[in-house]
Amino acid sequence: MSQKADEEGAIPDLARLDLHRQGRAGIPEAVLAEGKSLQQVVTIAVRMAQAVGRALITRLPSGWGDQLRAQLGPELGVDLYGEGRLAVVSRPGHRPAHSGGVVGLLAAGSADIPVAEEARVTAQEMGCEVRHFYDVGVAGIHRLVEPLETLRGDERLGAVIVVAGMEGALPTVVKGLLPLPVIGVPTSVGYGYGGGGTAALMSMLQSCSPGLTVVNIDNGFCAGATAALIANRLAELRDQTAGPPR
Amino acid sequence: MSQKADEEGAIPDLARLDLHRQGRAGIPEAVLAEGKSLQQVVTIAVRMAQAVGRALITRLPSGWGDQLRAQLGPELGVDLYGEGRLAVVSRPGHRPAHSGGVVGLLAAGSADIPVAEEARVTAQEMGCEVRHFYDVGVAGIHRLVEPLETLRGDERLGAVIVVAGMEGALPTVVKGLLPLPVIGVPTSVGYGYGGGGTAALMSMLQSCSPGLTVVNIDNGFCAGATAALIANRLAELRDQTAGPPR
Amino acid sequence: MSQKADEEGAIPDLARLDLHRQGRAGIPEAVLAEGKSLQQVVTIAVRMAQAVGRALITRLPSGWGDQLRAQLGPELGVDLYGEGRLAVVSRPGHRPAHSGGVVGLLAAGSADIPVAEEARVTAQEMGCEVRHFYDVGVAGIHRLVEPLETLRGDERLGAVIVVAGMEGALPTVVKGLLPLPVIGVPTSVGYGYGGGGTAALMSMLQSCSPGLTVVNIDNGFCAGATAALIANRLAELRDQTAGPPR
Amino acid sequence: MSQKADEEGAIPDLARLDLHRQGRAGIPEAVLAEGKSLQQVVTIAVRMAQAVGRALITRLPSGWGDQLRAQLGPELGVDLYGEGRLAVVSRPGHRPAHSGGVVGLLAAGSADIPVAEEARVTAQEMGCEVRHFYDVGVAGIHRLVEPLETLRGDERLGAVIVVAGMEGALPTVVKGLLPLPVIGVPTSVGYGYGGGGTAALMSMLQSCSPGLTVVNIDNGFCAGATAALIANRLAELRDQTAGPPR
Amino acid sequence: MSQKADEEGAIPDLARLDLHRQGRAGIPEAVLAEGKSLQQVVTIAVRMAQAVGRALITRLPSGWGDQLRAQLGPELGVDLYGEGRLAVVSRPGHRPAHSGGVVGLLAAGSADIPVAEEARVTAQEMGCEVRHFYDVGVAGIHRLVEPLETLRGDERLGAVIVVAGMEGALPTVVKGLLPLPVIGVPTSVGYGYGGGGTAALMSMLQSCSPGLTVVNIDNGFCAGATAALIANRLAELRDQTAGPPR
Amino acid sequence: MSQKADEEGAIPDLARLDLHRQGRAGIPEAVLAEGKSLQQVVTIAVRMAQAVGRALITRLPSGWGDQLRAQLGPELGVDLYGEGRLAVVSRPGHRPAHSGGVVGLLAAGSADIPVAEEARVTAQEMGCEVRHFYDVGVAGIHRLVEPLETLRGDERLGAVIVVAGMEGALPTVVKGLLPLPVIGVPTSVGYGYGGGGTAALMSMLQSCSPGLTVVNIDNGFCAGATAALIANRLAELRDQTAGPPR
Amino acid sequence: MSQKADEEGAIPDLARLDLHRQGRAGIPEAVLAEGKSLQQVVTIAVRMAQAVGRALITRLPSGWGDQLRAQLGPELGVDLYGEGRLAVVSRPGHRPAHSGGVVGLLAAGSADIPVAEEARVTAQEMGCEVRHFYDVGVAGIHRLVEPLETLRGDERLGAVIVVAGMEGALPTVVKGLLPLPVIGVPTSVGYGYGGGGTAALMSMLQSCSPGLTVVNIDNGFCAGATAALIANRLAELRDQTAGPPR
Amino acid sequence: MSQKADEEGAIPDLARLDLHRQGRAGIPEAVLAEGKSLQQVVTIAVRMAQAVGRALITRLPSGWGDQLRAQLGPELGVDLYGEGRLAVVSRPGHRPAHSGGVVGLLAAGSADIPVAEEARVTAQEMGCEVRHFYDVGVAGIHRLVEPLETLRGDERLGAVIVVAGMEGALPTVVKGLLPLPVIGVPTSVGYGYGGGGTAALMSMLQSCSPGLTVVNIDNGFCAGATAALIANRLAELRDQTAGPPR
Repeated sequence: MSQKADEEGAIPDLARLDLHRQGRAGIPEAVLAEGKSLQQVVTIAVRMAQAVGRALITRLPSGWGDQLRAQLGPELGVDLYGEGRLAVVSRPGHRPAHSGGVVGLLAAGSADIPVAEEARVTAQEMGCEVRHFYDVGVAGIHRLVEPLETLRGDERLGAVIVVAGMEGALPTVVKGLLPLPVIGVPTSVGYGYGGGGTAALMSMLQSCSPGLTVVNIDNGFCAGATAALIANRLAELRDQTAGPPR
Repeated sequence: MSQKADEEGAIPDLARLDLHRQGRAGIPEAVLAEGKSLQQVVTIAVRMAQAVGRALITRLPSGWGDQLRAQLGPELGVDLYGEGRLAVVSRPGHRPAHSGGVVGLLAAGSADIPVAEEARVTAQEMGCEVRHFYDVGVAGIHRLVEPLETLRGDERLGAVIVVAGMEGALPTVVKGLLPLPVIGVPTSVGYGYGGGGTAALMSMLQSCSPGLTVVNIDNGFCAGATAALIANRLAELRDQTAGPPR
Repeated sequence: MSQKADEEGAIPDLARLDLHRQGRAGIPEAVLAEGKSLQQVVTIAVRMAQAVGRALITRLPSGWGDQLRAQLGPELGVDLYGEGRLAVVSRPGHRPAHSGGVVGLLAAGSADIPVAEEARVTAQEMGCEVRHFYDVGVAGIHRLVEPLETLRGDERLGAVIVVAGMEGALPTVVKGLLPLPVIGVPTSVGYGYGGGGTAALMSMLQSCSPGLTVVNIDNGFCAGATAALIANRLAELRDQTAGPPR
Repeated sequence: MSQKADEEGAIPDLARLDLHRQGRAGIPEAVLAEGKSLQQVVTIAVRMAQAVGRALITRLPSGWGDQLRAQLGPELGVDLYGEGRLAVVSRPGHRPAHSGGVVGLLAAGSADIPVAEEARVTAQEMGCEVRHFYDVGVAGIHRLVEPLETLRGDERLGAVIVVAGMEGALPTVVKGLLPLPVIGVPTSVGYGYGGGGTAALMSMLQSCSPGLTVVNIDNGFCAGATAALIANRLAELRDQTAGPPR
Repeated sequence: MSQKADEEGAIPDLARLDLHRQGRAGIPEAVLAEGKSLQQVVTIAVRMAQAVGRALITRLPSGWGDQLRAQLGPELGVDLYGEGRLAVVSRPGHRPAHSGGVVGLLAAGSADIPVAEEARVTAQEMGCEVRHFYDVGVAGIHRLVEPLETLRGDERLGAVIVVAGMEGALPTVVKGLLPLPVIGVPTSVGYGYGGGGTAALMSMLQSCSPGLTVVNIDNGFCAGATAALIANRLAELRDQTAGPPR
Repeated sequence: MSQKADEEGAIPDLARLDLHRQGRAGIPEAVLAEGKSLQQVVTIAVRMAQAVGRALITRLPSGWGDQLRAQLGPELGVDLYGEGRLAVVSRPGHRPAHSGGVVGLLAAGSADIPVAEEARVTAQEMGCEVRHFYDVGVAGIHRLVEPLETLRGDERLGAVIVVAGMEGALPTVVKGLLPLPVIGVPTSVGYGYGGGGTAALMSMLQSCSPGLTVVNIDNGFCAGATAALIANRLAELRDQTAGPPR
Repeated sequence: MSQKADEEGAIPDLARLDLHRQGRAGIPEAVLAEGKSLQQVVTIAVRMAQAVGRALITRLPSGWGDQLRAQLGPELGVDLYGEGRLAVVSRPGHRPAHSGGVVGLLAAGSADIPVAEEARVTAQEMGCEVRHFYDVGVAGIHRLVEPLETLRGDERLGAVIVVAGMEGALPTVVKGLLPLPVIGVPTSVGYGYGGGGTAALMSMLQSCSPGLTVVNIDNGFCAGATAALIANRLAELRDQTAGPPR
Repeated sequence: MSQKADEEGAIPDLARLDLHRQGRAGIPEAVLAEGKSLQQVVTIAVRMAQAVGRALITRLPSGWGDQLRAQLGPELGVDLYGEGRLAVVSRPGHRPAHSGGVVGLLAAGSADIPVAEEARVTAQEMGCEVRHFYDVGVAGIHRLVEPLETLRGDERLGAVIVVAGMEGALPTVVKGLLPLPVIGVPTSVGYGYGGGGTAALMSMLQSCSPGLTVVNIDNGFCAGATAALIANRLAELRDQTAGPPR
């Protein structure tokens, strides 16, 4: 990493942006809004969008959307994803290129949807198509049949994200039925003993279905990024296979 | 409770047997061997068998079976259930009367079988017939189809016990598919984060399937006793319905 | 489960209602309001009431009652149970049929009453009669004598729910004195070490009274549903015993 | 504390005995054998017995009794209390003076007896008379009636120790019925969630019966010493009241 | 306990006051305001004051004092103790009789004062004189010299309460220097690992100073009541010793 | 799954082998020896090897290798991997086909090698080539330079497994420098607070390097299987790209 | 410590200031504002500034700065450090003397800056020069090169403080590369499992880099004070080496 | 670090010794015997002693001393420190040079001595003189007076190590009385709630005495190494001050 690249990302007394993470690690840096002031988020996002075209902001506090838009100025646009608490700040014309990667996404309950949405938008920002099915938990396991058939039938799928709170059993059941890497995302949905995502995280780590790996509670961003990374590498190979258009 | 009954159960400096628990609470007292010396177990079991005919011993340390038999003397018999670590000491002719109660029993993995057996023998000692299916966990959920159909088809069933370690998801799935009270038994099978039964217990308590209640880790005895209590009350009513034998 | 049934319950981007859970699992689906917006709760409850006649809403945030009523429109009624934080939305004339089931209910302290009420209304919605006694904890154990005598004297009782926070000892004492299945409900009443329901849950799981099973902290709904399921099956048999009216 | 007293207790590279603790804190120092070699225990106990007449050894590993006796030499005697894992090394004629203090002691289950014995011998070593009742737990609460009546009837009682494992509910029930300070001793008896004494300790700390204070898990020594300290101060006053013998 | 006494304390759908706890357990019942509505607190306190003369209310939410006073009506008075969050509702002329009991009280830091005050007022309500010293923690151990000398010099002392948060070391040091029972009260003062009172509670339970017993985090009420119970029994004996007034 | 397939895997009273998991989930079933008797392991492994050619046994207790070999009989061979506690039972000629998949593997310390070996053999059994580097932890971060350069230079790599105990920081550092999915395996190496793998697992889940997913403590098998699943799907595509051999 | 000194620091019913801690322990007492009222903070700070010249206030609630200034009166000044939530109240002309001590300070992420600032100002108040580098975490380890080179090149450095949340790996990496004592400060930055600083604290305690010691979560004050104490003692010796000014 | 240095330390399939850690980090690498086979320990220690003259082995299992000596061969010597479970393997004539550094060391109880000894030998191996005082815990705080006076009087002291289990209060008391950096070492001595070193670690981290930093439970090695690092840097400066010998 050159000294110059480092300097480009430095915002004194606030942050040193890792503008080359995409090249080095295959995943772009994102801006976690939680714990920062609006002004700090704007400063970082603007610098990032100017440098690399787009900036993904996660965990945007509710009600910040309009203020964010107001402070960006005319040369930058913003897309808001309210349910998933995300925003994307971008320079005109900087849309994510379709990578050809395809990711599956299941959420167990209605309350798990915000985390699932964080994963969905993240994977889309990395160029993927996301096929999602929500409220398909294990207490009524018949609801799972159709989504799994659909996913089994799509050969382009690189990985499947399964989001679940409460007892967190869905990823285990899904992985037992699909020949794909499954990434489990426990959510903080739950109560009493094992609440806050503890039971869900434990269940996924204890799972007797090999092929399932896990991210931390509510971390839809990491799940989306990892699934997209896997899917994009497959898609890249597929493109090479397909050869030049005939 | 009369003073006399109390005195009958008193073994000075060791225990005060609750010989009337069956009448008062619907479930006979059992002897937990864990943490007692062989001599103490023998003393208590003999006193209990002499007073009420039979004594169920749980958590018998491996290798104690033969010594137990040797110390009982000729007037008492013993049945050993090695896998479930149980023994039943009884006076000749004192077999548990068939109550007519029927209990279902599922175990998720091979390692859960000892706990399931503890539940099975306990329910049988309380007069029940137990229909059991082992190694039917959620990682290969197709294995569950046939047992559930069998259980749904038996109208006599009073309750279903589901034993599971690791991620403990089986009781949730089962309860979602059966119109019966389900008693979940987490086992200490598991490892790392959530091991020792913690994940399984949490999962069952977090379960989104109402109708599922839970006992403590590895407590097959309590699950068997509760299921039998429910089943026996149903059977008693059925007997009244059936009227006098023809 | 037919494809059609599934479609009937689907609310795109929000939920897939399990309208047939009553038939499949013996307990109707309820709407957990916690974590949902008022609009989402209304949407789901209306769809459910229209499909099956009634919708039980649990954990209704304080102050939502009037707004809920306002948004329902003229063809649906609502019953509010403030202490237990429940509401029932129903089509005219859709009252729960008396099942004949009878459930006992004890609460240890004043602070445990909201959870007890959640259990009470749930069991009533499933057609049961509930006999309840509040503030009968173990620190003044003489207060327990009369309720237990009353419950022992009612042969129709199917199960007893015991709600307790703090040290959670009441279910153990009760189960030792009643020949019925007891369902313990730990509440989040408590403080310091073991607060938030931890001590109560542990105590109930450690209980030396077999016949006691447990639900998660504050889950009055699950306790009420399970007790009603047990009681209703007994009542059904009693009806058959009674034969045709003479 | 004089420099000389300090030197008297110093055993280089091993310990500095607190020979004046009795005078300063009202409770003599004891020797915890756990974690020490037999040789270290002998060295410390001999020095202590020579200095102050008697040495109480707690948590003596099983099987050490005979070796201890063998190593003491002819001028010191030893009393062994196997169940409570204690030993008392003493110079001839050094018996604890009867203080006139009286302590009550209840143990919930058979498995709690070793911890209760540790408390009993400790209080006796401090000169107290101990009135004890074992296996009187809350699952069969009728067994508690007689012991409580006996204790209520003895006006000399200074404090009551209640030893309980599992759900640890006994001290709460007892304190609710006796006008005396109650010291709860949770034991490591238990299993699964809340095992190792955690549930019992939590229950006692959560107790809704004021007047109950607690020591750490299995610490019969501290409970016995505290109860004796309270009882001895009452007895001392009683002696003054009684005036000179007539 | 007579049926009549029970009825006197019953407030339907809210509470069954234990009006005879003073006689049965030596400590009067108090009203925990936390988790109750102002109206409920008033209802219970009024009933209690009318029945037994005084009602101690603990954990009064800040700002309730004036409202409480306003709702009591003219025939009842109220004393407010803001720092300790207590209030005493009383009928005219009903002041606690001086029992002659004396209690010592130390608090480690400024932040521990509210809990210490809860203990102080409780013991005073039970008739005791309380000698207190605040902000005498172990980080500057020289501050402890004078308070300990004062306490050692007062022969009337029945027990010493030591309140401490953070590392909770003060009770251990104090107990090592005083020949009296010490009751440790951990407070929820602290932060990070071991915060919320966990470190303080653990330290007190691990203490190597026998004679120290413990109550739950922030429970000044229980500590004050227990210390007063011990002190009052000593005082009662002293009165008898002193003989009739001359 | 046909009924016949299910029957083929059934071993009465012991297990129902999931012989079709490879086809359904892309990963073959393995035999976890821990918690089973030698006889049970042999029975299951023989059945599995006869049905599908090879059986991977994990967590083989030390010293079982020779007995295993002795009991297999002449028609089955066994390969032992002592450091990784694995064995592979196979029919003659049944070697895993080279899949073309390539997996990277790093272990932080010497004590992490057994878990790394479990991952390595598992991936090899699924046909992969594994490039491994051991003892390259973060306390001497210069040791990491060469392995990372080697891995970055191999375009065939599908995924990288990073095994670490203690503070578990290695996966975070590695993922920050490689454009590949990284699977972190915390090991139970460690001591005191955070020991047993807790700190390592937490660190990996807290990691600020997206693209890192995690398996449970010591689960080298799951990490190896998942990495191989990802690598094999890439290799399959590469084979298609390469076209028919020339 | 003289009686007079003690009296000087006593504020009745609030605090006993430890005005001589600097002389006794090498670190001045500070005022923790958290948990105190503004009035209490002002009272204590004024007394302290009057006695010893300056008073450092930590954890000042946001928004108190102006009120603090307003209440101090004309003879005392105040410096506010908003990001680090500190204030220094001082008498005119009382600036901390430059001790010559030099401290290094690294913070892993932007969110860790408040804690780092608390350490920085504390060390400066003790007379040190602080060389700090922020946002240099291990996910992009190239950012660490330049700061470490700078710190290695400054021979005056006494100690290095490393502040990190999330996985807390930075102190381990830094200590492995610098021949200086490193003080790790875990911050409460983090989420899900291991959040609130737990993972960071564990990682630092598990660290395989000897020479790293740790303070509690978010305790920048203690880290700053300890580092300054070490650095100041080195500087004092350097001054002696340098000999009398020429 | 040169490639050659790295190669020198590499032991294929076992370890990559960090032979240059002394130069890079100021502390030599040590060999943790726990978890390694005797053969592995010998291999690593021999390589290290041959390369840098001496090898410190920690946590040597009891009984390995003689075998270690036997396997070393004639050209290497070994010093055994049984109580502290250490061994030092050295080439003839390779004794640690006296650095001039001085370290203080206190241990609270007899059971903490092994951990204290680990710290003592480690600091001595780094050239320091260690002044130690054992069994000076806070339950008899008068025992602490003399050691503290001795330590305050030695101006050469660089740092003080305080080792304590149980409630872990000693470091707080000591740091409040000494103007030196104090390193607290919690030990795993303790029992019940807070046992295994948890209470001691928490207490030290919660300590209200700034200037105290902490290492993980039982890590005497890290405490000894850090204290020696601080002391040696002071000694180095003192040497420069002293100038050339006269």
